[in-house]
Amino acid sequence: MSKPFVAILMGSDSDLPKVQAAIDVLKKLNVGVEVRVHSAHRTPDATHEYVKGADQRGCAAFIACAGMAAHLAGVVASLTIKPVIGVPIDAGPLNGMDALLSTAQMPGGIPVATVAIGKAGAKNAGYLAAQIIALQDPDLAERLRGDRKANADEVLAKNEALQETLA
Amino acid sequence: MSKPFVAILMGSDSDLPKVQAAIDVLKKLNVGVEVRVHSAHRTPDATHEYVKGADQRGCAAFIACAGMAAHLAGVVASLTIKPVIGVPIDAGPLNGMDALLSTAQMPGGIPVATVAIGKAGAKNAGYLAAQIIALQDPDLAERLRGDRKANADEVLAKNEALQETLA
Amino acid sequence: MSKPFVAILMGSDSDLPKVQAAIDVLKKLNVGVEVRVHSAHRTPDATHEYVKGADQRGCAAFIACAGMAAHLAGVVASLTIKPVIGVPIDAGPLNGMDALLSTAQMPGGIPVATVAIGKAGAKNAGYLAAQIIALQDPDLAERLRGDRKANADEVLAKNEALQETLA
Amino acid sequence: MSKPFVAILMGSDSDLPKVQAAIDVLKKLNVGVEVRVHSAHRTPDATHEYVKGADQRGCAAFIACAGMAAHLAGVVASLTIKPVIGVPIDAGPLNGMDALLSTAQMPGGIPVATVAIGKAGAKNAGYLAAQIIALQDPDLAERLRGDRKANADEVLAKNEALQETLA
Amino acid sequence: MSKPFVAILMGSDSDLPKVQAAIDVLKKLNVGVEVRVHSAHRTPDATHEYVKGADQRGCAAFIACAGMAAHLAGVVASLTIKPVIGVPIDAGPLNGMDALLSTAQMPGGIPVATVAIGKAGAKNAGYLAAQIIALQDPDLAERLRGDRKANADEVLAKNEALQETLA
Amino acid sequence: MSKPFVAILMGSDSDLPKVQAAIDVLKKLNVGVEVRVHSAHRTPDATHEYVKGADQRGCAAFIACAGMAAHLAGVVASLTIKPVIGVPIDAGPLNGMDALLSTAQMPGGIPVATVAIGKAGAKNAGYLAAQIIALQDPDLAERLRGDRKANADEVLAKNEALQETLA
Amino acid sequence: MSKPFVAILMGSDSDLPKVQAAIDVLKKLNVGVEVRVHSAHRTPDATHEYVKGADQRGCAAFIACAGMAAHLAGVVASLTIKPVIGVPIDAGPLNGMDALLSTAQMPGGIPVATVAIGKAGAKNAGYLAAQIIALQDPDLAERLRGDRKANADEVLAKNEALQETLA
Amino acid sequence: MSKPFVAILMGSDSDLPKVQAAIDVLKKLNVGVEVRVHSAHRTPDATHEYVKGADQRGCAAFIACAGMAAHLAGVVASLTIKPVIGVPIDAGPLNGMDALLSTAQMPGGIPVATVAIGKAGAKNAGYLAAQIIALQDPDLAERLRGDRKANADEVLAKNEALQETLA
Repeated sequence: MSKPFVAILMGSDSDLPKVQAAIDVLKKLNVGVEVRVHSAHRTPDATHEYVKGADQRGCAAFIACAGMAAHLAGVVASLTIKPVIGVPIDAGPLNGMDALLSTAQMPGGIPVATVAIGKAGAKNAGYLAAQIIALQDPDLAERLRGDRKANADEVLAKNEALQETLA
Repeated sequence: MSKPFVAILMGSDSDLPKVQAAIDVLKKLNVGVEVRVHSAHRTPDATHEYVKGADQRGCAAFIACAGMAAHLAGVVASLTIKPVIGVPIDAGPLNGMDALLSTAQMPGGIPVATVAIGKAGAKNAGYLAAQIIALQDPDLAERLRGDRKANADEVLAKNEALQETLA
Repeated sequence: MSKPFVAILMGSDSDLPKVQAAIDVLKKLNVGVEVRVHSAHRTPDATHEYVKGADQRGCAAFIACAGMAAHLAGVVASLTIKPVIGVPIDAGPLNGMDALLSTAQMPGGIPVATVAIGKAGAKNAGYLAAQIIALQDPDLAERLRGDRKANADEVLAKNEALQETLA
Repeated sequence: MSKPFVAILMGSDSDLPKVQAAIDVLKKLNVGVEVRVHSAHRTPDATHEYVKGADQRGCAAFIACAGMAAHLAGVVASLTIKPVIGVPIDAGPLNGMDALLSTAQMPGGIPVATVAIGKAGAKNAGYLAAQIIALQDPDLAERLRGDRKANADEVLAKNEALQETLA
Repeated sequence: MSKPFVAILMGSDSDLPKVQAAIDVLKKLNVGVEVRVHSAHRTPDATHEYVKGADQRGCAAFIACAGMAAHLAGVVASLTIKPVIGVPIDAGPLNGMDALLSTAQMPGGIPVATVAIGKAGAKNAGYLAAQIIALQDPDLAERLRGDRKANADEVLAKNEALQETLA
Repeated sequence: MSKPFVAILMGSDSDLPKVQAAIDVLKKLNVGVEVRVHSAHRTPDATHEYVKGADQRGCAAFIACAGMAAHLAGVVASLTIKPVIGVPIDAGPLNGMDALLSTAQMPGGIPVATVAIGKAGAKNAGYLAAQIIALQDPDLAERLRGDRKANADEVLAKNEALQETLA
Repeated sequence: MSKPFVAILMGSDSDLPKVQAAIDVLKKLNVGVEVRVHSAHRTPDATHEYVKGADQRGCAAFIACAGMAAHLAGVVASLTIKPVIGVPIDAGPLNGMDALLSTAQMPGGIPVATVAIGKAGAKNAGYLAAQIIALQDPDLAERLRGDRKANADEVLAKNEALQETLA
Repeated sequence: MSKPFVAILMGSDSDLPKVQAAIDVLKKLNVGVEVRVHSAHRTPDATHEYVKGADQRGCAAFIACAGMAAHLAGVVASLTIKPVIGVPIDAGPLNGMDALLSTAQMPGGIPVATVAIGKAGAKNAGYLAAQIIALQDPDLAERLRGDRKANADEVLAKNEALQETLA
């Protein structure tokens, strides 16, 4: 069986600066990624085709990033029973509140795993996808535990540094 | 050429009590309607097929009614260049604010004509579709003008009645 | 019969940078436009007069752009049975949420076709007006289909470009 | 000169149960009132005519009550330089948040004096209109001071009663 | 009797750039103004004293400008039966939505005439105060009508200018 | 020195069903309470007088409960340097969102300790006041620890009961 | 290796009527579940202990359901690298908007997979957990595909039934 | 007995520029402070350990500052019966509305004293903690009264200065 990978879709290439956080996390954790620009509305056929193909090629989880009336994650979720993670992007005047509701409030039957708006959400989408794959990959689980410990150590180090700053 | 008609789609048959307002307006104005239950997420293929077929059979405008993360209007709009009217349904704990943002905040290129949340919106979706068709149907335009005048007369009559109540 | 055209009204000339997106779309699609600054509140009589005149001169659809308590689209809609498209402009501290609700939440009987807040909405207002006119103009329908395909190709090209960037 | 009076307009007679609070306050304070059902959108001409007529007949303040995309107060304010008080009515799924923003967020030049959503707002609209008229009517000012004292005494009495309940 | 004037209070002198719009309107219309920095919370006694004094010296209307949990207008309104206009200032992370609700949602019995958030609201507060005073000052009423006509002419002129720009 | 007590103020006796939760917690913990109906706006003088008197009689903390544009806690806080706890009451169409912002968003210098909207908040206001007094009352601290353990035991018991229900 | 199961935690047993939808989905799909009442705030130690134990006993995914300031999912997520699904419960006056933001807006590093507010979200949490486990369980994947087809068939059947109703 | 002090926790050192306002107030009032970077989610064990230790070493009040889904104050409050003050930080696209709801909407039994979003809230957290400690420290109470008077004098001075500016 081929190695499971994560498929990252974004509705517009202008979302890349935020989506990059998901790519970075997955690369750091040595998880395979495919990244695509596919719009639920402007290229519906290409989106359908890509999702179905990736699904068959061993995609373990999809990450769909979109702003405003963000339908991309829902459309992807309607085409696969692989876990789909939705990242609401803070594009446009409502700062992503529209994208959050459009992504999270999915009706019963077609789940989307929604994370925070914007860059923090993209980062967590990467971690969540890795945590899902780690259920069947003990080495990745180990890397995740190590990464989490490193993040904790970083907080502790910043705490130490602050003590010196304030002293 | 066949007579233009309006295709009304709803994401769930539980929306019918609100969607009925659109049907009633169109029937009153003698505009042809087709009404379908099609879910953007649960029956994506049937939705695609229906929209493309209706488009070719002479559908002049689509009305898509859905609640929560309401993607139905956007999905329909991605499949046709006929005008698509979105009715955000007030289902679920957020009372339709989620559906309003999911319907109205469409990104550039794929327009959805969004009306008010719930029953008032469904009613106006019927009127809007009729007004669009009336551009090429002088008789319908006449009926619309008559209906509007009747509505105005009703307000004026209520005003008269109120004077007597308060006197 | 004269060629149908689109009348674009804005409440203030400070909205022009956003409204321009609607003008550009319609010009690109070779649809006639008239553009006016008319305030629902500051020049109600001129607004009434213009709307009624444009209606008679063959205006097929109105686009009304306004911010804050955006009443312009509603006022226009009360004066005509031609389709009225409302663009909520993101002016003022609430970033257009006020304009969205003031435009979309029209009571039953007087529909306004509301699009997204700001520039994306203005762009879609142009497309929506063109799609309405295209119902009776097969050449325009053809141009719209071509434009949509060009937009899709652009997304696909960006996807290709991204693959090279990330490789 | 004729005695100044207050003109109360409501967009729909279904608003009367809430609007009644304004009528009651003004009657209690012995201020003349006219009450009308006039819709900004469905009967624009009748609204214009009534406002201009009331203005000339000595109307000192207008109270405009409407729900959803509440344009009534703004339309009235565009037609007169008399003070216009807007009462956002809690009709529809958004509970009056739409009406509050549609009433309060008026652009510069055409003020609307907005009060609270619903019944409390209607009551305060009555008081505010009376306070405006009281500037030129010392007897009414005296009645207002008496009424306010009575309200305060009622709070104090409820406080006394509570002490006994809790004792 | 002394000439009626308007008392403008602001919760912090950092609000002055926005409050200035109210001052400018009143000066342009030749209405007397007093401007004070008084905080409902930090200088409650000075606020009480000023309001009661201004009331007795012939103040015809109060304008209270404050941001965040904006209590200033409510506190002023509790101390006088003169009309009190509240301007919610867009200070702090919520951009004035907090100030709008804190100002508009007054419970029954103590009205505050709320205008829009920020600069547009301050401008309208000036106009509203002038319109109230104009009820007993025909010359001011004439100036208000002239000013409104000038504003309308300005819109019409901008419309003309736009036609040349776009031609 | 007299025993410290908690003064509970509510803006209206209609708030009592929710405020009761605060009274119950304090009585259960054997903390002295005074309960008063005092309106920031309708009885400002009585409110000032009561707060200053309670402060001098040994009040250790104030709990102020109010709905809509809830100014009561802010007004109390402006009159004392004792801790003031604000409970936003869910009265009116906005369900307490207005009261939450009016209570929490106090400008710098005059703090209000805001708790949750409604009954849960009233309950927590009681606990918070008790926790403040417990800093100087070891017996009360002990009772608080016991109460918290009892609450935890109750959750654990409900968990046990659920296991039997679901088995 | 033991069979993977899903651990469902709820902050209060009053949430059970909504949480039941998650239990039902998982039972229908023949996925093992454990259901616990554990409060992030009232029983933090028991929560920690349970999560760490379930993690070691082969829990494949956690579902955490909580209302208001819903911290339960975040607390669980901080204790494990297994996927954690958060269900915002619509308890309290804000109808779950508070719970949605408290669950979805997790800072980078500790992901929570957020689903819709309330019953629809609980249902989708069940499906999402099953989809995650199905990555390593082809039989479950088959059941999920069958269930999804059954849901689609149900929509199609409702569509058929509607045609008869409306005919 | 050791002198009571205030423990300030922040979820990230990037919050320091806003948290600094709390530190400054407490230092100005000569109240002892400890400042720590501890994340509820990334360093849960260190947070638990620190809170329990500080509690025993005589911490009189905790101030917890966090943004987005701000769980820090709730986690601290679940571990101590000392008063816990929560400062919602305006980090991320929602400008702190998420943090406000995550901090204020605590369920019954575990109170958090919530202050305003951001810098104003941090300042008030410092004052609130000092006011709590001042209940058992008459000198601190005196300093607080002096500080409040100084703040009032500053407002009055700014009022004087404004008079000269405007004259």
